[in-house]
Amino acid sequence: MTSLELQRTNLPEGLEELLGPKGLLTGEEAREYGRDFMGEVDNAPLAVLRPETTEQVAEALRLCTEHGLSVIPQGGRTGLTGAGVPSRPDHEVILCLARMNKVRWLDEKNHAMAVDAGCILADVQKAAADANRLFPLSYGAEGSCQIGGSISTNAGGTAVLRYGNTRDLILGLEVVLADGTVLDMMRALRKDNTGIDLKQLFIGSEGILGVVTGAVLKLYPAVAERECALLAFPSLPAVMKSFAIARESTNDRLSAFEMMPQNGITLACNRVPDVVDPVEGDYPWYALLEVSASKEGSGLFEMLEGLIERLMEEGLVVDGTVSSNEGQRAQLWRIREALVEAHNDMPHLLKHDVSVPISDMADFIETAIEKVQAIAPDAMLIAFGHVGDGNVHFNICHDLDTPDGSLATRHKEVTWAVYDLVQEYRGSFSAEHGVGSMKRDALRRYRSEAELAVMEKLKTALDPQGLLNPGKVI
Amino acid sequence: MTSLELQRTNLPEGLEELLGPKGLLTGEEAREYGRDFMGEVDNAPLAVLRPETTEQVAEALRLCTEHGLSVIPQGGRTGLTGAGVPSRPDHEVILCLARMNKVRWLDEKNHAMAVDAGCILADVQKAAADANRLFPLSYGAEGSCQIGGSISTNAGGTAVLRYGNTRDLILGLEVVLADGTVLDMMRALRKDNTGIDLKQLFIGSEGILGVVTGAVLKLYPAVAERECALLAFPSLPAVMKSFAIARESTNDRLSAFEMMPQNGITLACNRVPDVVDPVEGDYPWYALLEVSASKEGSGLFEMLEGLIERLMEEGLVVDGTVSSNEGQRAQLWRIREALVEAHNDMPHLLKHDVSVPISDMADFIETAIEKVQAIAPDAMLIAFGHVGDGNVHFNICHDLDTPDGSLATRHKEVTWAVYDLVQEYRGSFSAEHGVGSMKRDALRRYRSEAELAVMEKLKTALDPQGLLNPGKVI
Repeated sequence: MTSLELQRTNLPEGLEELLGPKGLLTGEEAREYGRDFMGEVDNAPLAVLRPETTEQVAEALRLCTEHGLSVIPQGGRTGLTGAGVPSRPDHEVILCLARMNKVRWLDEKNHAMAVDAGCILADVQKAAADANRLFPLSYGAEGSCQIGGSISTNAGGTAVLRYGNTRDLILGLEVVLADGTVLDMMRALRKDNTGIDLKQLFIGSEGILGVVTGAVLKLYPAVAERECALLAFPSLPAVMKSFAIARESTNDRLSAFEMMPQNGITLACNRVPDVVDPVEGDYPWYALLEVSASKEGSGLFEMLEGLIERLMEEGLVVDGTVSSNEGQRAQLWRIREALVEAHNDMPHLLKHDVSVPISDMADFIETAIEKVQAIAPDAMLIAFGHVGDGNVHFNICHDLDTPDGSLATRHKEVTWAVYDLVQEYRGSFSAEHGVGSMKRDALRRYRSEAELAVMEKLKTALDPQGLLNPGKVI
Repeated sequence: MTSLELQRTNLPEGLEELLGPKGLLTGEEAREYGRDFMGEVDNAPLAVLRPETTEQVAEALRLCTEHGLSVIPQGGRTGLTGAGVPSRPDHEVILCLARMNKVRWLDEKNHAMAVDAGCILADVQKAAADANRLFPLSYGAEGSCQIGGSISTNAGGTAVLRYGNTRDLILGLEVVLADGTVLDMMRALRKDNTGIDLKQLFIGSEGILGVVTGAVLKLYPAVAERECALLAFPSLPAVMKSFAIARESTNDRLSAFEMMPQNGITLACNRVPDVVDPVEGDYPWYALLEVSASKEGSGLFEMLEGLIERLMEEGLVVDGTVSSNEGQRAQLWRIREALVEAHNDMPHLLKHDVSVPISDMADFIETAIEKVQAIAPDAMLIAFGHVGDGNVHFNICHDLDTPDGSLATRHKEVTWAVYDLVQEYRGSFSAEHGVGSMKRDALRRYRSEAELAVMEKLKTALDPQGLLNPGKVI
């Protein structure tokens, strides 16, 4: 062990006194915090810090920086790129925000609420709903992810089409820098042009510039009525044409348009209990479409029926069903969720979370399928995603029956083929999952020297010792 | 003259060759570019550079940086805080983007368009409308301001309630740094989480970090139907209660709620030709309210009539009128525009562009009026603004008949009283006009040491010689 390593294994004095026995975990207690959601990263932390207040976060960061100790900010550990877990074993401390989980205030009239970073997203949604308000951010991990993580990764999800990404839902932010400086930007304002908008720097930068400890969130009027439909399409261009027509003809009411492939739905029905495909027959593509309004009696059911009729007349939709109550609506959404669960454990699963301009989506997916099939002809391709955002989850795996096909040795080749194609369309190799430790090589490959150099400069300006979430993003 | 000054009065070699005779103005031709919209700043530039391409901008900036010459990026010169004009005479060159005024492309299916920074905002709106799309950014200066200026100041305006500020309308950006580096971030994506979102740094930072040369803008479905109403209120709390009811009961259709005081409307009717107050009688407060939809037959007229009926029944609204055609609608909006024109030349006009949480707006305005009246009892207060954004234009002046009242010697006292009160409400001393050269002392007074220090670090990281728009913001 070098003297540097020896030094790092010693935690800074004062940490235990600062955080108390519940606030500082080591050894076996700390171990599980080093493991990420998909089990792809598993690095033991030196310790886990669990502060209860912003002041404790600030003092803990100050102590760690003095000590030259690297700190990994951690939310609900539901990330998919390893951003919230150590990138090396036994070298880093995790700063877990879970105990900072209070709603600080909710102001109905200002359509805003302030929360600690460690609040679970579902709890935030519920607090808003209890005040007859909507916090629209919604995605699969909402039951365990923390809002601070949503902010640090600029999470997307299923309501982006209508309400934007997390960035669009942030009015104010509280951030602690590496040296323990607290940036209190907890303003609840719709307009504020007073110099560089610093909070933007910390949204989506995955904890490499500062630790988000609190936020003021933008709320909307609660949804009073919503209707949902599942449509079946003969082709991918028909999906895209239908989306364009749906957007134009639903009078600003469209709130989701989730595309799903036939093989994904079949897997969901076969492998996840209680999932039933409500559309008879097999069609290559499906979409789950939702319209919503903040007042009842908005005629949404008739709107959807009229839309489907038109799409069928134009030959764009082959079959479809409209939910006629909340139970049916939940069942349709269950298919979309189960689609993900159903293939999360498939052999050699490669997740690609990419985006292209919406106008290029059908072209992109068709070409990408060809390219992947040329490399791994026996692979299973499950392309689903958020059509309204140009966001495809282009997942590739092997069937459980043939776990060791061509993909086994061609992970990298396949991924670069997909990303290179994304780049041709001026798309993004990470639409909503971020970079973390897993996509750093893609960042270096697809972002210009100029962009990378500015990112490095910002990192150096705010964290000159490079102690915040090292080995992530840049 | 010191040698440094001598050096600076000499323009870098190669500039004229680079930009051509139309691209480089000096002497009298350059003079007017140094004067701002309100005539509050008037500093002769050394020269005006008028590049036609991004490459010319990059090379011009490189040459100026080599030469140690300060550069002021300039749009349509409609700013209200002096951000786009030199802060010292005969020391700086202006980089005018006016000749870069092309729409690069428009993609209807992706609801996006790419433009040069020098495009006039009204031309951008029109290009979108020609493709049956809406670019929602709209404000008084739209006929002459440039989109690059809107972006650099994160402009707000009258549609923020529904569509957000300029920041919310930007998908991609092209920026040139002080050293001539081009950051090509012209991606047309709804989701892109690939590292630090660099474009956010340049939106609203008033050209101190880089020069915006192009942008990808977010479009919306065109508005097919809109209805407008002018309402008269007995009190400020009644305005705010009515806004809350309007937002809840118009089923996500509310697109503007502009508050106006009685004295402002009287001035507009008396001083601006063709402006007629359509509501009989005098009431202390008015509001212009608009609802809109992307489909015809949305029942907006009935929606507004129903709303007004309810507000009158509850005693919140005293009188009102709904526009029944486009002509009447234009007339109502003309009142809102004329309100600004009518007092722009009043003696000792102090413009305060402030914001507070919407829930505090009535309290704030009432308290601010008291405070100002205590200092300048004979001043005229014209408080108008965007209720949905918590944004008040709290303007104060003297009547033309009594041009030399108490305000003449108490500008600063009044302004600090207003801003101090804003700060008590955790509001913003500059909601949409920015900081420029005129509000730097307010920035230093109301933003924390920690925030200011980070702004300085970012400035140093991206423009180490401090040559881009010196004397602005920080």
